[in-house]
Amino acid sequence: MRNDIKIEYPSSEKIYMRGERFPKLKVGMRQINLTPTVEMVDGKKVIRNNDPIIVYDTSGPYSDPNIEIDLQKGLPKLRKAWIANRKGTLMYYAKQGIITEEMEYVAIRENMNCKALGIESHITPEFVCKEVAAGRAVIPSNINHPESEPMIIGTNFLVKINTNIGNSHENSSIDEEVEKAVWSCKWGGDTLMDLSTGDNIHETREWILRNCPVPVGTVPMYQAFEKVNGKAEDLTWEIFRDTLIEQCEQGVDYFTIHCGIRLKNVHLAKNRLTGMVSRGGSIISKWCQVHNEESFLYSHFDDICDICAKYDVAISLGDGLRPGSTYDANDAAQFAELDTMGELVERAWAKNVQAFIEGPGHVPMHKIRENMDRQIEKCHGAPFYTLGPLVTDIAPAYDHITSAIGASMISWYGTAMICYVTPKEHLSLPNKEDVRVGVITYKIAAHAADLAKGHPGASVRDNALSKARYEFRWKDQFNLSLDPEKAREYWEASNKVGGKYCTMCGPNFCAMRISQTLEDCDK
Amino acid sequence: MRNDIKIEYPSSEKIYMRGERFPKLKVGMRQINLTPTVEMVDGKKVIRNNDPIIVYDTSGPYSDPNIEIDLQKGLPKLRKAWIANRKGTLMYYAKQGIITEEMEYVAIRENMNCKALGIESHITPEFVCKEVAAGRAVIPSNINHPESEPMIIGTNFLVKINTNIGNSHENSSIDEEVEKAVWSCKWGGDTLMDLSTGDNIHETREWILRNCPVPVGTVPMYQAFEKVNGKAEDLTWEIFRDTLIEQCEQGVDYFTIHCGIRLKNVHLAKNRLTGMVSRGGSIISKWCQVHNEESFLYSHFDDICDICAKYDVAISLGDGLRPGSTYDANDAAQFAELDTMGELVERAWAKNVQAFIEGPGHVPMHKIRENMDRQIEKCHGAPFYTLGPLVTDIAPAYDHITSAIGASMISWYGTAMICYVTPKEHLSLPNKEDVRVGVITYKIAAHAADLAKGHPGASVRDNALSKARYEFRWKDQFNLSLDPEKAREYWEASNKVGGKYCTMCGPNFCAMRISQTLEDCDK
Repeated sequence: MRNDIKIEYPSSEKIYMRGERFPKLKVGMRQINLTPTVEMVDGKKVIRNNDPIIVYDTSGPYSDPNIEIDLQKGLPKLRKAWIANRKGTLMYYAKQGIITEEMEYVAIRENMNCKALGIESHITPEFVCKEVAAGRAVIPSNINHPESEPMIIGTNFLVKINTNIGNSHENSSIDEEVEKAVWSCKWGGDTLMDLSTGDNIHETREWILRNCPVPVGTVPMYQAFEKVNGKAEDLTWEIFRDTLIEQCEQGVDYFTIHCGIRLKNVHLAKNRLTGMVSRGGSIISKWCQVHNEESFLYSHFDDICDICAKYDVAISLGDGLRPGSTYDANDAAQFAELDTMGELVERAWAKNVQAFIEGPGHVPMHKIRENMDRQIEKCHGAPFYTLGPLVTDIAPAYDHITSAIGASMISWYGTAMICYVTPKEHLSLPNKEDVRVGVITYKIAAHAADLAKGHPGASVRDNALSKARYEFRWKDQFNLSLDPEKAREYWEASNKVGGKYCTMCGPNFCAMRISQTLEDCDK
Repeated sequence: MRNDIKIEYPSSEKIYMRGERFPKLKVGMRQINLTPTVEMVDGKKVIRNNDPIIVYDTSGPYSDPNIEIDLQKGLPKLRKAWIANRKGTLMYYAKQGIITEEMEYVAIRENMNCKALGIESHITPEFVCKEVAAGRAVIPSNINHPESEPMIIGTNFLVKINTNIGNSHENSSIDEEVEKAVWSCKWGGDTLMDLSTGDNIHETREWILRNCPVPVGTVPMYQAFEKVNGKAEDLTWEIFRDTLIEQCEQGVDYFTIHCGIRLKNVHLAKNRLTGMVSRGGSIISKWCQVHNEESFLYSHFDDICDICAKYDVAISLGDGLRPGSTYDANDAAQFAELDTMGELVERAWAKNVQAFIEGPGHVPMHKIRENMDRQIEKCHGAPFYTLGPLVTDIAPAYDHITSAIGASMISWYGTAMICYVTPKEHLSLPNKEDVRVGVITYKIAAHAADLAKGHPGASVRDNALSKARYEFRWKDQFNLSLDPEKAREYWEASNKVGGKYCTMCGPNFCAMRISQTLEDCDK
C-alpha cells in the first residue's frame, strides 16, 4: 500500500473559509490562480490582473500540503469534537431549528466566494437547517465516520455526483480500491459507494472509510448475501440486521436498501424486456418468491430506521425495479415501487432518519420529466438520486455519455445527486482511467444542471474560462477546466503554449483573433 | 494513397431494398444477423431464432463486397441517370408535386424495414415531396456529385449528423483526409464538411468528392480568403462568386455562407465575452467594418441563389454571430442574425434553392428551447442545423460530451441535423480516433432524439440489443451497438465471451441472472 498519496491541481492552492456562527470551522476550497491579461492600448502594454477563481473542492486533506497523509493512521477526524455530545441525528436537531456545525459548513461550502463577488445566495445555515428538517436535503454523516467533510444532497443545492468502486470475486485488490477512492475525490466525486462483493469486504471498507474525505455508501445486502454464500433463500432478518450494525459501527454514511419491493409487486417485472437489473432488488425478490412472504426489508423497516438513527446513517431507498432498458421505462413495476418508497420515506422521517430515493436507470428523453415530477409528488420532496438515466440502449462502451444526457436533464428538473456511469458499464469493472472519465462526465452533467437551475455563482468558472479562451491565456483555460491535465495534453500534442491561435484554425483563420482585431478597429 | 479501403461490420451484410415507383432504385442498408436464443424449458433445450435487424447505413459502396473500390476512379455514379434530364432543383420539382428518384430513395431509407415489422410510418415519397416543397426538408444533391446517396434533412425525419474534416496550414495530408472521410461514413456520419484551409484546397476537395457517398458541404469563404492571402479587406464579390462556381462545378452539395451578418448588426458582438467565434463570420464582419459597407454576401444574396439553383446546391445559412460561450447565448447579436436568416431563407425558396439554418454554439440547458422555438418562428420551418450546443464551457477535452447533451435536447425539440464536436474541440485538430469518438457521440445524441420524437422503428435496435443483453448473447449485444469493436474490446479485456455474467457483478451477483431464475420459479 502506498502511503503518500497527495492530490495536486495546477496553479491551485488550498484555502479555508472560516465559519461565523462556529468560528473554529475551516471549510476547505480550491483557489485557481490566473495569469494577467496583457493588452496593447495606444501602443502601450497594459497589464490587468485576473482575480483567482474559487471552486468547490472534494479532495479533502489530500490537497493540503500542510497535512501529512498516512493511510495506516487514516485522515484527521474533522468532525470528532462536533459529534461528541450529540443526542440525535442532524434531522433531530434541524426539526428543532438547531443549527449544527455541519449545517454552517455546507452553507459556506455551497456558496464558495459568492459574497465577495457580490452574488446573492439563498443558502444560509438557517436555510440548510430548514431543508434538512423538511427532508428535502440530506447531510450523510455517520458519527463513526468523522473523517468525512460535510456535504449536502438536495434539489436546492449544487447537484452532487456519486462514484461506485469496489472489488468483486473476479477483480482488483484493496490497494487499488483505496487508490480509486482518492482518485475519485481528486476529480470531483461527492460521495463514494463501496460496492465490494468479493473477499475481504469488511477490510476493504475499513481502509476506504478511514481514508475517505467524502461520505461513503454501501449496499449492505451484498455483504449479507456473501454471508449466506450467495443463496438468497437462506437470508434472514437477523443476518441482515447484524450486517447493518457492523457497517454502522465502521462508519458507513448511507445505505442503499431495497425496502420498496413488496411481495405483491414482484410479478410486475415478469413481462419486462430486461426483468430486474438491480442486484439488491433481484436478491430480495427471489427471497420473497421462494418464501412467498413479504420482504423482511419492508416488514422490518422501522427496525432498520432505529439502527440508522442511532448512528445518523442515511437511508437511500434503492430502486430494485428500475428499468434496465428504455423499453421497460416508466412501467407499472417501477412506479409501484416508487409509491412504496413514498410511504417509507415518511416513516424514516418520523424516526429522524435522513433519507433519499433512488431512481432509474434507462429512460428515453421524453419520459424523464415524468420520473422527476412523480418522484416529487409521491416522495414528498425527498432528494432524488438517479443512475443516469441512459437515454438509449445501443451504445455500450459509451454509456457514460448516453447516461450523462439523461443525468443532466433530470438534474435540471430537480434530481439532487447522480450516480456516475463509466465507459465500461454493461461490459466490465472500471479501471482508474474509466473512473476519471466517469467522474468528469458526471461533473459536466451536474454543472450543466447547476447553470440551468441558476445556482448562485455557478457561472463564475464558465465565464472565467471563456475569458481566458478569448484572450489566448491557454494555461488559465486548462487550469480552470474540469480536467486540466487532459486539456493540456491534447493541446500540447500539436501546439506550442502561448500562441495566438491553435491548430484547429492555423494562424490566419482564428475567428477570435480576427474578432479582436475588429475591436481594435474601433479604438 | 491506399486504394482498397473497405468497410466491414461484424455479422452484418449489405442488403438493398427496391423502389416501387422507381423499380430500378436500390437503397442500401445494413442487416445485422443475430444468434438464436437458447432456453431450457422443462429440461429440454429450445432454440428460438432472432430476426436480423436492419439499420440505416451511411457507408455506401464501401461496405458492399461486390463493388470494387478504386479511389483513383471514384465511386460509382449512382445518381447520374436520374439527373441527366433535370430542368431544375429538387425543390422546383417538389413544388409541382413531382416525385423524383431521390424522394422515393430517402423515403425507403428512412423507414428501414418498418413495413415488414408492421410499424406504421408517415414517411412516404409523397410526404417527402411535400416537405421539400415547403422548405421543411432538404435533400442536398449537387448535380455534379452523383456519387452521393440521397439523404434528407428535416425535423420530420431521422436526426442527421455532420462531421467536419479538412486540413489546415498546420496539419495533415490529402491521404489522411480521404481516409477520415470514409472513416466518418463508416461510423455513421450523414454529411461531411470539408473545412480545409491549407494548401491544396481544390485538390483535397476533389479527392473527397469523388470518393464520398454522403453529401459534402464547405465554407467557400475559406478558399476565397486563401485567394486574398488572408486579408479580409481584399475580398470582393467577384472573387467569392468565382469560388462558388468553382466549387459548384466540383460537386459540393451545400455551402455554409454567412449572409446573415449585416453591417448594422456587427457592433452587437462588441460587448460579448467571447466576441465572434465563427471564422466565416469574423472574416465578413471585418470586411464590413473596414469598408463601412453592407456585406457582399448579403447584397449579392440573390446572385448566390442563382448560382446554387443551377447546380442544386443547398445553402446553409451560417451563424456568424453564434455565441462562443454560455455567457453570450441568446443575445441580441445572435437573434438579430436569426431575423436576417428568416428573410433570406424565403428569398432562397423563391428561387427554388433548398436551404437550412445554422445554430449555436454554447447555450446553457435552460436557454436551448428558446433557440429552437425562435428558429421555427423566424425561419418559417426551415431545417435547423446546430453545432452542439455546448451546455457548459468548463470541460475542454470533453466537449464532445458537453455538446452532445445540448445536441440531443435541441434535436428532440426539432433540430434536423447536428454538427459533431470531437474531444479536441478548442484544443487542436481531431485525429482519426477523435473523429470516431465524435461521430459515435453524435449518433447517440441523434438516436436519443429519434427515440424521444417517436421516429418509426427507432426503438427496434434498442429493444433487440436489450433482449440480447438480458439473454447473455454477448456477441449480438456488441454487433447491435454503435461501436461493436470498442464494446467487444472492453469486454474481452476482462471476460470470456459466452459467460452468463460479467466482471461487473461476478458469477453470484448478476441481477439479470437472478431475475431469470425468478422466472424459472414460476414455470
